[in-house]
Amino acid sequence: MKRHRNGEIWDFEHELPAVAANQCGVDVVLGLDGGTTSTVCVCMPVIPCSHSHFPDPLPVLARAVAGCSNHNSVGETAARETLEQVMADALAKSGLNRTAVRAVCLAVSGVNHPTDQQRIIDWLSDIFPSRVQLYVQNDAVAALASGTMGKLHGCVLIAGTGTIAYGFTEDGREARAAGAGPILGDWGSGYGIAAQALTAIVRAHDGRGPHTMLTSCILQTLDLVSPDELIGWTYADPSWARIAALVPVVVSCAEAGDEVANTILLDSVQELASSVKAVVQRLGLCGEDGKDYFPLVMVGGVLEANKRWDIGKEVMNYISKDYPGVQAIRPTVEPAVGAALLAWSFFMKESKKSS
Amino acid sequence: MKRHRNGEIWDFEHELPAVAANQCGVDVVLGLDGGTTSTVCVCMPVIPCSHSHFPDPLPVLARAVAGCSNHNSVGETAARETLEQVMADALAKSGLNRTAVRAVCLAVSGVNHPTDQQRIIDWLSDIFPSRVQLYVQNDAVAALASGTMGKLHGCVLIAGTGTIAYGFTEDGREARAAGAGPILGDWGSGYGIAAQALTAIVRAHDGRGPHTMLTSCILQTLDLVSPDELIGWTYADPSWARIAALVPVVVSCAEAGDEVANTILLDSVQELASSVKAVVQRLGLCGEDGKDYFPLVMVGGVLEANKRWDIGKEVMNYISKDYPGVQAIRPTVEPAVGAALLAWSFFMKESKKSS
Repeated sequence: MKRHRNGEIWDFEHELPAVAANQCGVDVVLGLDGGTTSTVCVCMPVIPCSHSHFPDPLPVLARAVAGCSNHNSVGETAARETLEQVMADALAKSGLNRTAVRAVCLAVSGVNHPTDQQRIIDWLSDIFPSRVQLYVQNDAVAALASGTMGKLHGCVLIAGTGTIAYGFTEDGREARAAGAGPILGDWGSGYGIAAQALTAIVRAHDGRGPHTMLTSCILQTLDLVSPDELIGWTYADPSWARIAALVPVVVSCAEAGDEVANTILLDSVQELASSVKAVVQRLGLCGEDGKDYFPLVMVGGVLEANKRWDIGKEVMNYISKDYPGVQAIRPTVEPAVGAALLAWSFFMKESKKSS
Repeated sequence: MKRHRNGEIWDFEHELPAVAANQCGVDVVLGLDGGTTSTVCVCMPVIPCSHSHFPDPLPVLARAVAGCSNHNSVGETAARETLEQVMADALAKSGLNRTAVRAVCLAVSGVNHPTDQQRIIDWLSDIFPSRVQLYVQNDAVAALASGTMGKLHGCVLIAGTGTIAYGFTEDGREARAAGAGPILGDWGSGYGIAAQALTAIVRAHDGRGPHTMLTSCILQTLDLVSPDELIGWTYADPSWARIAALVPVVVSCAEAGDEVANTILLDSVQELASSVKAVVQRLGLCGEDGKDYFPLVMVGGVLEANKRWDIGKEVMNYISKDYPGVQAIRPTVEPAVGAALLAWSFFMKESKKSS
């Protein structure tokens, strides 16, 4: 590993007691889930077992948290510093230095193209010893692995502030749908649902659309008096997460029988289902007869049970009509652990090859 | 007028030759059109005539141009400085000082609420002598006046980067539709058309939508190789105008028979027509039998004749089916002149009252 610009990030390594600093031969992997809101890194020991027989709970040595690491949001330099710092923190908390690391899986949002991947790998290889195996993925892949315990097979649907569907076949082909942000049509997302609700209020107010309960409920939530004030509220800080936070209000209105809110949620269900279907179709995950088993990992606030109006359940209803072999999985570990399981899985595969 | 913070803006007044600095008794009005892209101010003499008998061409004494003056975009302080500077420039070019001014009409984007209006009037009254009549309007009102030569009657439809419909009855009632920006559903705008086209490319690419000619045409225009690169392109600078600049490509594809592009343009036509209809309906501009005459001023790049696929003409077709009394007007003067005509019109009305 070369001398790195941010030398001070790794200063803790010189202060570790010699016995801890991997003199005792602990092998670990790092799994990192980097999103627009926060970045989480976990450090896990390399344990010899199979995907289906992991110890429960998983032996996570340390967990570190940092802020946004999406290079589209904060720029390349700040994103890299955050990623490097959170990895250093996880290792420092484990009392280990970089020589203990066998594999690293960085699953970060904003990785949309092979060039994004290569740029991050080039930079990672400056940080870690050359024998460390490095993997870079879109953060959706960590979410998939968090449901399949590190196995890259099946499809994941994420619907939080944003939405994406991402899938892998057992022989390594991959495909994605959506995940392109709101300007490029991620309409099933939390942002999409809330923006449509705000739009419905403006349309009801100016005479283009029907009356809706959303008007009084959302204005009350935002402490506004008139729909005219929504323009100022929206553009004062058009962050996607701030707008997506209105989804529970839309769900409440739909549950109370508001037709406009119901239509918005039904549209969202169809959008989310169409993302999954596009991935399943392109990868042939459902087999030739359309009935093969495949896992569908479901992640994100929009898909969690919302009292009576359950968006996740409706999406599953849509999908299982076409693909009866689909099996819904709601992960019990966080995506960063999924990334660590992926790092572990890649490392085990490589070890087998070379032994 | 109070001593103003930006005293230096008005320093030119001390340097005017005494004979020019309104010693000869010229009365003028200022009309200002402030948008997100640029701000224009014109200075016109107060001429005694009627709406229907203006001299042609209008006697514009001076015209000054500045940058963005939308307080939502650049903040309150910068917006005010731009507005004050451009008014001072127009007066300086006319060789007049503020004592020559009889009325000012500021038509600026971002004025969506009476409190926006009052804030600007309070600040304007610090700049001008107390007898100067001050009017603040949404910039759409200047566009209407540019078509009706200063008469506030009828409806204006603006469709450029954004879109808004704004109308007035002869007895002073007003109504608007849309104009709330893309997050709040201005789907017929240039931005809306282009964002839907980009979305269609992503959907075709990931399997959620049909193949479209938009893919090759837009990628070529942007010098990109793959639809995956659109994400980086879009979020590198999500300015609405940059995205709206793709409208001519969408029109070309529609003219070449692409179904997806055609559907996008037809949706846009319906959205724009529905904004106009909402305003006409609420104000009763069409009379009780729906057949009364009213002017519809049409402004903005999206509504200009686009070779064969003419969005403006299609919008008119839709509207005139419901309201046969509608008369389309394409203004021959710019909105800043419309604002000056409004200032003139208000001033004449007040003069009549007090005489």
